Parts: sequence; C-alpha cells; structure tokens
Amino acid sequence: MDIIVLEPGITELSIKHIIKKLESKGLKTHISHGTERTIIGVIGDTSKVTEEEEDAIRAMTGVENVVRILKPYKLASREFKKENSEIKVRDLIIGGKKIHVMAGPCAVENKTILFSIAEKVKSAGATILRGGAFKPRTSPYSFQGLGEEGLKYLAEAREKYGLSIVTELMDTKDMDVIMKYTDIIQIGARNMQNFKLLLEVGSVQKPVLLKRGLSATIKEWLMSAEYIMSQGNHNVILCERGIRTFETATRNTLDLSAVPLLKQLTHLPIVVDPSHGVGKRDLVAPMARAAIAAGADALMIEVHTNPEEALSDGEQSIKPESFTKLMKELKPIAEAIGREI
Amino acid sequence: MDIIVLEPGITELSIKHIIKKLESKGLKTHISHGTERTIIGVIGDTSKVTEEEEDAIRAMTGVENVVRILKPYKLASREFKKENSEIKVRDLIIGGKKIHVMAGPCAVENKTILFSIAEKVKSAGATILRGGAFKPRTSPYSFQGLGEEGLKYLAEAREKYGLSIVTELMDTKDMDVIMKYTDIIQIGARNMQNFKLLLEVGSVQKPVLLKRGLSATIKEWLMSAEYIMSQGNHNVILCERGIRTFETATRNTLDLSAVPLLKQLTHLPIVVDPSHGVGKRDLVAPMARAAIAAGADALMIEVHTNPEEALSDGEQSIKPESFTKLMKELKPIAEAIGREI
Amino acid sequence: MDIIVLEPGITELSIKHIIKKLESKGLKTHISHGTERTIIGVIGDTSKVTEEEEDAIRAMTGVENVVRILKPYKLASREFKKENSEIKVRDLIIGGKKIHVMAGPCAVENKTILFSIAEKVKSAGATILRGGAFKPRTSPYSFQGLGEEGLKYLAEAREKYGLSIVTELMDTKDMDVIMKYTDIIQIGARNMQNFKLLLEVGSVQKPVLLKRGLSATIKEWLMSAEYIMSQGNHNVILCERGIRTFETATRNTLDLSAVPLLKQLTHLPIVVDPSHGVGKRDLVAPMARAAIAAGADALMIEVHTNPEEALSDGEQSIKPESFTKLMKELKPIAEAIGREI
Amino acid sequence: MDIIVLEPGITELSIKHIIKKLESKGLKTHISHGTERTIIGVIGDTSKVTEEEEDAIRAMTGVENVVRILKPYKLASREFKKENSEIKVRDLIIGGKKIHVMAGPCAVENKTILFSIAEKVKSAGATILRGGAFKPRTSPYSFQGLGEEGLKYLAEAREKYGLSIVTELMDTKDMDVIMKYTDIIQIGARNMQNFKLLLEVGSVQKPVLLKRGLSATIKEWLMSAEYIMSQGNHNVILCERGIRTFETATRNTLDLSAVPLLKQLTHLPIVVDPSHGVGKRDLVAPMARAAIAAGADALMIEVHTNPEEALSDGEQSIKPESFTKLMKELKPIAEAIGREI
Repeated sequence: MDIIVLEPGITELSIKHIIKKLESKGLKTHISHGTERTIIGVIGDTSKVTEEEEDAIRAMTGVENVVRILKPYKLASREFKKENSEIKVRDLIIGGKKIHVMAGPCAVENKTILFSIAEKVKSAGATILRGGAFKPRTSPYSFQGLGEEGLKYLAEAREKYGLSIVTELMDTKDMDVIMKYTDIIQIGARNMQNFKLLLEVGSVQKPVLLKRGLSATIKEWLMSAEYIMSQGNHNVILCERGIRTFETATRNTLDLSAVPLLKQLTHLPIVVDPSHGVGKRDLVAPMARAAIAAGADALMIEVHTNPEEALSDGEQSIKPESFTKLMKELKPIAEAIGREI
Repeated sequence: MDIIVLEPGITELSIKHIIKKLESKGLKTHISHGTERTIIGVIGDTSKVTEEEEDAIRAMTGVENVVRILKPYKLASREFKKENSEIKVRDLIIGGKKIHVMAGPCAVENKTILFSIAEKVKSAGATILRGGAFKPRTSPYSFQGLGEEGLKYLAEAREKYGLSIVTELMDTKDMDVIMKYTDIIQIGARNMQNFKLLLEVGSVQKPVLLKRGLSATIKEWLMSAEYIMSQGNHNVILCERGIRTFETATRNTLDLSAVPLLKQLTHLPIVVDPSHGVGKRDLVAPMARAAIAAGADALMIEVHTNPEEALSDGEQSIKPESFTKLMKELKPIAEAIGREI
Repeated sequence: MDIIVLEPGITELSIKHIIKKLESKGLKTHISHGTERTIIGVIGDTSKVTEEEEDAIRAMTGVENVVRILKPYKLASREFKKENSEIKVRDLIIGGKKIHVMAGPCAVENKTILFSIAEKVKSAGATILRGGAFKPRTSPYSFQGLGEEGLKYLAEAREKYGLSIVTELMDTKDMDVIMKYTDIIQIGARNMQNFKLLLEVGSVQKPVLLKRGLSATIKEWLMSAEYIMSQGNHNVILCERGIRTFETATRNTLDLSAVPLLKQLTHLPIVVDPSHGVGKRDLVAPMARAAIAAGADALMIEVHTNPEEALSDGEQSIKPESFTKLMKELKPIAEAIGREI
Repeated sequence: MDIIVLEPGITELSIKHIIKKLESKGLKTHISHGTERTIIGVIGDTSKVTEEEEDAIRAMTGVENVVRILKPYKLASREFKKENSEIKVRDLIIGGKKIHVMAGPCAVENKTILFSIAEKVKSAGATILRGGAFKPRTSPYSFQGLGEEGLKYLAEAREKYGLSIVTELMDTKDMDVIMKYTDIIQIGARNMQNFKLLLEVGSVQKPVLLKRGLSATIKEWLMSAEYIMSQGNHNVILCERGIRTFETATRNTLDLSAVPLLKQLTHLPIVVDPSHGVGKRDLVAPMARAAIAAGADALMIEVHTNPEEALSDGEQSIKPESFTKLMKELKPIAEAIGREI
C-alpha cells in the first residue's frame, strides 16, 4: 500500500486522471479528504509498482508527494525470511553462533609475505584469509595488484594453512579467473552500485561479500544485495566498512549502528571491517571489540608483518602480534553476548 | 612550527613581503626551494599565531597554502597533560577505572514519574540521574521543559535516591538557577559553539558535560573544550551523541571511533549517549555495549517508565526493565577490558 | 492529516489502544487494510499534534512508522501567506524587485578601516553595511570583536554614508545594546538553533537575518524562522551561507538550490552569502553572479581594503576594486531575470 | 616537496631510519627542529612517490603526519596545461566561447518519443542529444534500458536532426557497442571510481563525459580524469551533477562552487547537470541559469515530452516548452559574462 498526497487546490479532473492511471495498473484506490490535504490510498500489490512508475506518478499535475509504505527490497528482507541466513564457505558457517575473523594484507604482494602473514593469522585464530589481487586505487600511478599471480598465491596459502579465502572482483571481465580461485567473492565499496557486476555475481552460487558504498544508505545497500539475490544467488554477506562524512580525523566514519539495525531489517549476516572504517592502526582493536559487542557476525582485519613496507594501506594494517592480542581480547566479549570466536 | 607553501612563479618581492610580516611577529623563517614549489618553514612559538593571523597570511599574494603543524588546542591536549583527567562529581570519579552510567528521562515531566524512574535506574546500578528542565525543541509549539520546578524535582531525587544529577544549561541568563541545583552542567549539541555560554561555564568549577555538535569535527569539539578550560574550569567531560550524515535510517550516526581517537588526543573523559546517537529504542542496548567495548568512561541513557506517554523523545527511551537487563550485559564487557561498572 | 503505518502482525488490541489514544486528542481515524500493511489515516487538525505526541505514537507497540503529511511550520509557509514578504529596513525593501547588496568587513576592527570600506562599498552600489562587533570564533585565543565600541562605529558610518547596518547578536544578554544600534539583527549559523535567542529576537519588531546552520536542513531552518515569528516578529530574512559536507576544497558547500526551493516553500526573502559559502576570495564573484541568477533577493559580501591585515576571515574578503567590478557584472544578470540591482 | 611531521619524543634512531628510507627512493631530506616539533622536508620529485609509499612512511614509528604539498594529479592540472582544453565533438567545440546544451530523455524508451524530443530540443537550440540505452537503476526490478536498440535510435536521431549524441557506458563488456554509436562516452556518477572502466575509455580517443561521484571530492574526481588521461585520452569533460549531503529536500546538493574552483585547478571543460543535481522539475531552470552565471561550459538537461509517462526520472524532466523558455533566459546571462549560447 502506498499513499499519494495531493496538492491543496488540485482539481477534480486531475484527481480523476491520477486514479485512472493507477487503475490501469490493476490497483485500487481509496480517497480521504482531510482538513488540509486530500490523500489517495493505493490498495493492491504495490510492490510491483516500479521506481519509474512511482516517479511518473510523482510527476503528475497535482501530486505533492508519494509515500511508499513497503520496503523496496524483498528477498533481502527479514519479512521474506525470518531466520538468520547461514552462509556456507567451504566448511565454515558465517552467520551462526561462531564469529569468524577474516585477516590478511590489503594487497597480495608476493608469496613470502603472504605466507608469513597467513601462518600468523591462522595461529591467532583467523579462519579466512583476505588479500587483494586486483586493487582499486585512486591513482593510476599506484600499485594495481598482481592479478592472477596473486590469486594463485592465495589458493596455495589456502592449501598450506587451511584458511578459506576472500578476494575482490573489480570487473565483469575478471569473473572467470576470480571464480577459479576464491571462496568468497568480494564486491568493493566503490562497486556497490556497479549493477552489471552485481548481476554477474548473482548468476553463480559462490558467497558474495558486499561492502557498503562510501555514501550508500542502508536501503541502497540492501537494494544492491537484492540485485544479487534476484539472479538466484542468496549467499550474500554484508560488510560495513565506514561511510563518508564531514569528519576527516578518521579515514571514514565506521557506522556500527548499522549492525543492530541490519539485524532487524535483513536475515543476511554482517561483517565489520574496522581497518578501512577508521584507517588508523591504533583504532582498529577498540573498534573490532565494539563491532563484536554490537553484534557483528564476522570481522575483516588488515594484518601485515611489515606495515611500513606494505604496498597498500600500511597505515591501517596491524602487526601479527597486535592481531594475536586482539583475538584474545575478543573472546570474553563474544562470550558476554552469548557467542564464540 | 608552520609551513607556508608558495605558489609557483611567486616573485622575490612577494616572498620578502611575507618574510617581513612573519618577522614582525617575532618568528623566524627558513626557506626551502623544491623542484616544484618553494616553502617557508616558520620557526618559533607558532601556537601564538592566531587564527586570524593565519588567515591573513593565507590571504597574501603568492601564498598557496598554510599548513599548521601544531594542534590549535593546548589545555585539552594529551601533550599538555599525559595522565587521564579524573573529574570529581560529588563522591564519584568520572574517568577512573569505574564506568558510570547516567540514566533518566529526556525531560523532567513531573515529580512522580521522575522519582519512579530515579528509583529504578538507581537499583539497576546507575549513579547519575539525567533529566532536562530547560529543553531545546526544534518546534516553538513543543513542550519546553518545566524550568526551575524541574530542577527542584531533580534535587529532591538526588537526596532521596543518592544519585548525582546532570541537566542542561541553554542560556547564559539561566546560569545562576542551574548552578543552584545541578552537579554537572550539560551543554547540549546545538550549543557546542555557543561561545558566550562556554565562557560562562568556564568561569565556575562545576563539571561540564560538553556534547558534540551535530556537525562538529573532533578538532572543533576540542576547541570548545579549550574555550571552557581557558577560563579556568578544567572539569570538562566530553559526550559523543551522534553526528549528522546522509544516512536517515538512524536519527544520527553514532561515531564510536571518536572514543579511542579522543583517548589519544586528550586527557578528558568521554561519555557516550547511544539514545540520541541512534534515536531508536531497539538499538540502544547493542550500541551501549559497543561503547563500553570501545573504551567509553561513562554512558548516558534515556530511560522512561512509559515511553508512549513521554513528553519528549519517547521513541528512543528504553523501559526500566530493559535498562536493568542492559546493565547486566555491560558488566562482563567492562571486565573484559579491565574495567568495572 | 497524518498516516500511521502498523507493523505486520499487530494485534487487534494494539490497534484499539492506538485509536483510543488518537481519539483522546480529538482526532478521528480511518483504517485501511492493504495486502501487506494496515495503516491508520488520522483525520482532523493534526498540525496541533506536537512533535512529542508524534514521538509518543511512534513509540507505541505495533507502530512501524508515522508519516506526517503537513509541514511542521505554519507562519513561515507559502501556504500561510501567498505573496512574497517585503521586509522594510529603514527606507529599503528587502524582497522586492530591487536586489540589495550588504557589504563590509567580517569584523569591525577600527573606525578608520570601517569608514574607508563603507565609503567604497557605498559608491559601488551597496545599500547595507555589514560588520561584526561580537564575533563567534572557534578559538578562545582569537580576536572576539570590539563589542559596543564596534557598534558605535557602525552607527556613525550609517549616518555618514547613508547605509543601513546589519550586525550579529550572539547572546541574550547583549540584546539591549544590539537593539540600540543596528537596523538588522543577524543570528549567526552557529546560533540558528539557540532557541532562547530566537525567542528573544522574536519579541521585537526589528528585522532579523537568520543564517542557515552548518548542518541545518531546510525544514529545520524554517522551523527556526517559525520560532521567531511565533513570538510576533514576522520580519525574518533567511540567509544561505553554505552547509557542511564531505568536501574540503571549499570552506563550505554553498547550497544555491535552496534559493528556488525556499521560494516555493516560504514567503520570506532570501539572501546569499557567497563569502562564507566558499571561503575563497577568487570564488566569491562567480558564486555571487550565480546566486542572482538563481533568484536571491540580496547578497552579503565581505569586503576589506586590506585582506592581508584583516583580523578575521581575510582569506575570503574581496578588495573594494573587485567589489566594484562585481557590482557591474551583476547588473545585466539581474536584468536578465527581470530584476534590478 | 613533501613534509614529514615527527612525533614529539621521536628517537634519533627512528629519524635515521626514516631518512634512510627516503634516500633509498632517491630523495633528499632537510631537517628543521622547531620548538615543539621536528619536521623533515623532502626534496626531489616527490610526485613519483606513490600513494602506497606515502602510506608506508606514515606507518613508520615516530611519524605523526605526512603533508603532501603537490597535487596528486598532473595531466589534468592547470599547471600542466595553462590554456583551457577545447574538446572536439564532431563539428562542435566544448570548452570554447560557445556554451553547449545537451538535452534529451533520461532513458531512450522508443523511437517515436526520442525523435519527438530530439526535434524539439534541436529547434530550441540544443546541440547534443542525451539518452541512456544502458541504465543504472537502484532496483533490479526497474527498466534497465533498451541496450543496442536504444543506441541505434540515438544514431538515427543524430542523422535526422543533426545533433551529436552522448550516452552512458556501464561495463567494459559494452565498450565495443557503445563505441560504434556514440559521440561522447558518458561515465556515470556511480562508476566514477570504476577504475577498469576508466582505463578502458582512456585507451580510445573519443570524448569522455566524466560525472562526479555522489560523494567524490574534487580531488578524487580529478584523479579519475587522470586515470583516463594517463592512458592517452585527453578528451575528458567533467560533469557536476550534485553530491550527497544530509539535506533531503533536494535529491542531491548541486555544488556549483565546483565550477569556478575547477577552472582554477584544471584545464578541462565543465558541464553542469541541474536535472540530477536537484531532482525536482521546478528547480531545473533557476539552477541552469545559475550554472551559466558561475561559468559552466555546457549544460546537460533532461527533457521529456510526457514526464508522467517517462520510464525513468520523470520527476526531474522538464517539458519541451519549458526547455525552449529556459534557452531564451540563458542567452542574456551568457552574454553578461562574455559568452554565447
């Protein structure tokens, strides 16, 4: 059901024109005359009214506003599926009682460094190895990633250390090569509304980690999840990684309230990436703790053996020792809210 | 030390003009010619260079930019005072090992309701009672608070239940009446840059709870703390209560990363107000837990026995039963990070 | 008329409870059962439903959302008064065919400089002299203005050059002294929601220039105008001066679309202040031209004979020669849209 | 030249470590000891220092901050090319004295409507026809565009009405088909940081219209232009189309100050799209006038013969009659600033 608010002084003819249009779409209407405004209640399955039809109604003479009552996403909504979705990643479950931690370097730089980091995060308790082979960089002159070579190292690290892997897909053209290696396909913040890419990953069954766009609302983010799910792939994991605000003291503003809010709106699991969220190494541990306390299902943390030599995002990577310490701190917090890590 | 970046192609005359100006202020300069830019390093106590003098230099012919190296606040900075400030509120210490919880209604409505709430939050473990007697409301037609009558009820509740009290000061004219009753003077978000009000509360020794403005940067917030401290009152407590962003799914975006960041930048204690931060009752508890995990020294939470009848902010108030449950959940999280509540 | 959207699965009892509450406020209700949601249409004069009552309804069990159809401001709305308000300032009219230009230094520094600037802006075509005697500065260590001495110089300049004057009121305590001298009382951006100050200037009949807050929505801004008007002072002039966004290349983001939007929503005249809006001298002229083209009723521009020595905001002040040139450029643009300057 | 600000209390060893690292990259250093901080000035061609190297330095022990003096873009900068770039589109020049207007429907819906709109905008003075064949829609259930069929209609309209055409490329896979038809390749706001797409359009010589991302800074926008130019395609046209802010009264906040600011920073021409910028039909004309007054080189305006039936963005499309009226209003404003339209 939707509500159409009419302008004061609208003519009877215009009202008839609007009603005729709605009826032509198989919808019923109900007019209420208030003291200061007349409104039309639209009855029927308005979820079939597309965005453009809504715009068209808003564009009609005499219409002041159209208020949509229903959420624009369906498959991603908690109403569609009451129980939490548990996403299977090889032998792991994301979205269950156990909180998983994805850790690793921002970019895969070479095999030695990657293996060294993988070994350490594994022994500290991480279950998934992160690392970019295709890197979105704001400068064309920056390191753009190792490409397939990097993917191979990740796959080797998976075998050697028993870690699942997650890595980013940046372009539809790279879909085949990414599919060949990764366990979770990451869609980066800058591609959250790259709709062709969403359709592409929607057509497979591999889990997708969908990062929130820098300036994406919760609603838009869930609409992007809906894009993927509408193609048949319901294995979507959401990842909060900070939004852009006026504050420049941190790289982004990590929106932790998104975690409990999403738990109400959707059945999909939620990961928090404090590394990108704050962009400063010293703030990663407290925000990781806070994310767990807020109810996150998993964490994604940048770890590097030598942040000073990292080819990407060294400023926000923590060292393996700090990561090990953090994992210990997270344990009692997880237990305090009835989970384990 | 500051840096003045000069435009490419600046004339020798303009450079001399700039140097002369700096020297007239007792500062020394050091020129470095780079391949693409010339810069002037300014040596001496540039913290005495005021904002307007900096602007004036920026306005000079040939100046591309002025980069200030030092922070504009001094008394509020961690460099000025290495140890955490512990603020004494009657017999309590804010900023010590123990985390305090301030709870109560948004506005003081009448004695019965206030006392009922006070009794319940006290027994759940709160140590400070909050409640507004002067209310900043966006509409002139909304309830504006009980004024002094409300302050009296707060003072009576303090005696009866052994709680300290915190209430908001909105105008310099109300300073005397507020001083007569409250233990902590609250400066609301909308008044964070009401500089006359800051000077006024700076001239007494009573603790001041300074809420962050809706769109205030961390730096501006600390500058407002500096305003108060510059008048001699060093008893400033900072309160994060959410910032304004593009996201409308929550009332504000609670910036929890401000907590560990402020711990680096300042020695002042930090309170988190999740009620205003999110504006939705169901999100208050998870964000309160997250605030503790992030390192907050205290919480400020809106509690009402009957949110449906509250005269202000009912939507974000939790019931006493929920508050009691929350206090229990906070305990193990506080312990997990070496604190108590 | 308002709309209350109910949660799916709400009980009949909860619905009755909500209806009873609405009826207790003299409102009638009308229930519509849609396929996916039930909604309650509220009939009657819902403009009397205050903010807190709305919150209280939103806080009731089973309520998903409350959608307000009517705007929360009345006196400031175009519906309340169809024709443009013309505000009389001594012998001038703001909001009529003629576009007025307010010009002068950011702060009044001394008599000589003020008079020199006044003379030049007058001869270039400005009709109102601006200048701050009480200055809101983010640092307590910055120049805070000359106080009453500055007001005297402004009044003397008014006599000598035949300019009306506008200056800022920062605190209720300064109301009497400001009233003694100024023609227009300016409420600064940081005080847009200093409600006690709004009530104070609402109780006189002198024109008030209400600057938009750094992060104030158009709705909140009009609510602040409503505050002033609710006390009887309808002589309110709105001033767009830039909002805070993520962009740091300009001091603020000048929201020129506010001009034509406000022309639809309100009958009050609109001034644009490009100096604060952009914060960079070279951008002032193009944005002043754009403001006129967008339909502004007046401009407020910082002019200083020697920006390099200005005690405040030198970076964004233009020189008298530039101002004279700008005034000439504005003339044909004003004529192109049927106005004069 | 860059500046490295060191933490107070940094050890001599750490300083040596930093200097050694810089020297290993072929850079020279110069240390200055201030009263409160020590800084290292970095001498040499620091434009070769990549983002990741900067991050790595920032990550070193004892480094408080790294201040980059030079802009991170080169080819796009005004310093690289002093004169305005004039971009040739068939027989038109964008960036010259003449201001061009791109007009047409949001999406190409069918041949009849497109031709009808094309005829009318042509006769009103538009020189370029806009229309989407591949449409980025926030909902997977919305109309996604006609694809190649739409491109064919655009090409036919070009022949019939003598208009150049501009249409959006959404995915690298569609590059060939887009290249076959369009005169200007549009990169949409959501793809401004789709780096693979930028590299792709950088490898041809066809003009690229690069829309500003919803939350992109001016710097990031110019870096995306740099991406395209770094591959050899210098025919980049920038298009301001509104940024995302806290204000919801307009769809976006049109940042017109970007126009004069970009004129300082870059030699590339600048288009303004007021239709997306404000999202409300009635605000399009005043903002189009303001854009010209601010110095825009071209406008992009959505025009539809029947906005109420448009399949996309009907709310912000103006009718041909309104467009014709607007074109007449723009003429004297263009002349007032020494241009023609």
